[in-house]
Amino acid sequence: MAELIIGIDLGGTNLRCALMDDEHRILARYETSTGALDGPDNVVQRMASGVLAVTKQAGVATEKIRAVGIGAPGPLDSCRGVVLEMPNLPGWEDYPLAARLSEKTNLTCLLENDANAAGWGEFWGGAGQGCSSMILMTLGTGIGGAVIMHNELVRGPDTTAGEIGHLVVTDGGRLCGCGGHGCIEAYASATATVARFVEALTQGWDSSLASKPHAEITCADIFTAAAAGDHLATQIAKETGRYLGVMAANMANLLNPERCVFSGGMIKAGDLLFDAIREGCAEHAFPAPAKRMEILPAALGGDAGVIGAAGLALQRVLS
Amino acid sequence: MAELIIGIDLGGTNLRCALMDDEHRILARYETSTGALDGPDNVVQRMASGVLAVTKQAGVATEKIRAVGIGAPGPLDSCRGVVLEMPNLPGWEDYPLAARLSEKTNLTCLLENDANAAGWGEFWGGAGQGCSSMILMTLGTGIGGAVIMHNELVRGPDTTAGEIGHLVVTDGGRLCGCGGHGCIEAYASATATVARFVEALTQGWDSSLASKPHAEITCADIFTAAAAGDHLATQIAKETGRYLGVMAANMANLLNPERCVFSGGMIKAGDLLFDAIREGCAEHAFPAPAKRMEILPAALGGDAGVIGAAGLALQRVLS
Repeated sequence: MAELIIGIDLGGTNLRCALMDDEHRILARYETSTGALDGPDNVVQRMASGVLAVTKQAGVATEKIRAVGIGAPGPLDSCRGVVLEMPNLPGWEDYPLAARLSEKTNLTCLLENDANAAGWGEFWGGAGQGCSSMILMTLGTGIGGAVIMHNELVRGPDTTAGEIGHLVVTDGGRLCGCGGHGCIEAYASATATVARFVEALTQGWDSSLASKPHAEITCADIFTAAAAGDHLATQIAKETGRYLGVMAANMANLLNPERCVFSGGMIKAGDLLFDAIREGCAEHAFPAPAKRMEILPAALGGDAGVIGAAGLALQRVLS
Repeated sequence: MAELIIGIDLGGTNLRCALMDDEHRILARYETSTGALDGPDNVVQRMASGVLAVTKQAGVATEKIRAVGIGAPGPLDSCRGVVLEMPNLPGWEDYPLAARLSEKTNLTCLLENDANAAGWGEFWGGAGQGCSSMILMTLGTGIGGAVIMHNELVRGPDTTAGEIGHLVVTDGGRLCGCGGHGCIEAYASATATVARFVEALTQGWDSSLASKPHAEITCADIFTAAAAGDHLATQIAKETGRYLGVMAANMANLLNPERCVFSGGMIKAGDLLFDAIREGCAEHAFPAPAKRMEILPAALGGDAGVIGAAGLALQRVLS
């Protein structure tokens, strides 16, 4: 009989929950606001409600669930199931999230970094299906990542691996949110793309977005303007792609993976972004690993996190 | 009974050969000039002589040898045992090195990239002993590398993984031998260290080495001068260390490995180099993976290549 598992994606705003089988088919879904400001115990309560809701919706007894996987923003200790801190939120220091949800649900609950969960989701049921090595880069406020080698997620002994966003591409370059300089995140995240665009406007470059208040310009605005032919927006969008291509080349040269998958709102830009990524990669990677590595958009959209969290939990209970 | 294996390190100048047991104890050694200019068939003949020499020296019948591992400079196809080309040497294009040596010796011969062999040597019997994840960076004319995760060498489907020297640390920066710009090799190899030093002399900086013809200045000269208190040499040497530290931080953030090992003549500089590497790494890596990752000099010196080539060959025939 197929195993049943639940994946939970704990986002800053929304909490998604899905019940699925061991072939990554989603059988029931539940979504609510995270309510992270109300403290971790409240969030655990909402997660437990989600578990009940999806089992009820699918008509499955809770005790038939093999495991619950939780994907949460880092830093966290995936082995112990402990959130070390939640950026800008009090009460989450060293919070044993997996154990608390386990108490509430009587189920085995396992914690993963959200980017690793998304990476595993794509590998298991999305753009990484059928290969044995894959890199994921998630493009949003920051850049997250996941590394899968020999069919295994690379977590590292501190479960902190995959921080691709904080690899230096320009030594001594732009200040990054992590406090370092020159990280790829400081150049090619959605936030950094907006920052570079606004800097260009401030320097007097013209654009169809010039009349919009600078603080309201989003990365989506820039890609929309680029698609409509705006010169500056096109330049900035392509530059973002080229930076990502340099990082993709670094991954190709270092790890010779089969796929390099990009996720996040930015990938809606399609060829405009991906052509630039592929060009940047081809410029810097050696021919053989460059030829091998397919550069692809993520296939699962917002479901990657719940699917991957569930998949990793299943893998951990079966191993 | 212990397995007996032979490792061969095919260098540009010398060919080293060692017979060893499966606990990486060297039982016999043989070294000769490579004679690469005389063409690959001649080199195979010298390798076969090496195999005979070490078996004779150890008093072991050739048929007791389980496998022969050959470490050779890339690019090569390790699966098929084929050297794709040998930089600046004619006659090596698509040369089936492993098969040819196998014909001569009647032994199973397996080919590996030399940096991967050195990395595996250190992992198996040197500075990486006892851990499950390790990065090697070899510092010489270029920068080579090896990545070991979950106790396995990461080769990739094209067996090209580990090219750490060609990860970009300064986008659009110094021209690298590979034709790209900004690779770590263009900043922190022995060759690049000399180039940066000579550039500083040309710009008018003073040094105890200023009177030496620029073309004769070696990396060893710079580290010797630095150890003797030369200001410019100290600056350049520390900068090399800091660049390597940035790359070590990239490895820590991406892979959270337990060890990061450096090999090559430069490591004789000791603390002068390693303090700078550790500082550069601490500046850029997240605290947990930085604390985890030990930064160490290689322990096996020139033996890493033969030991690792033999060890990887044994692993392949046993798997």
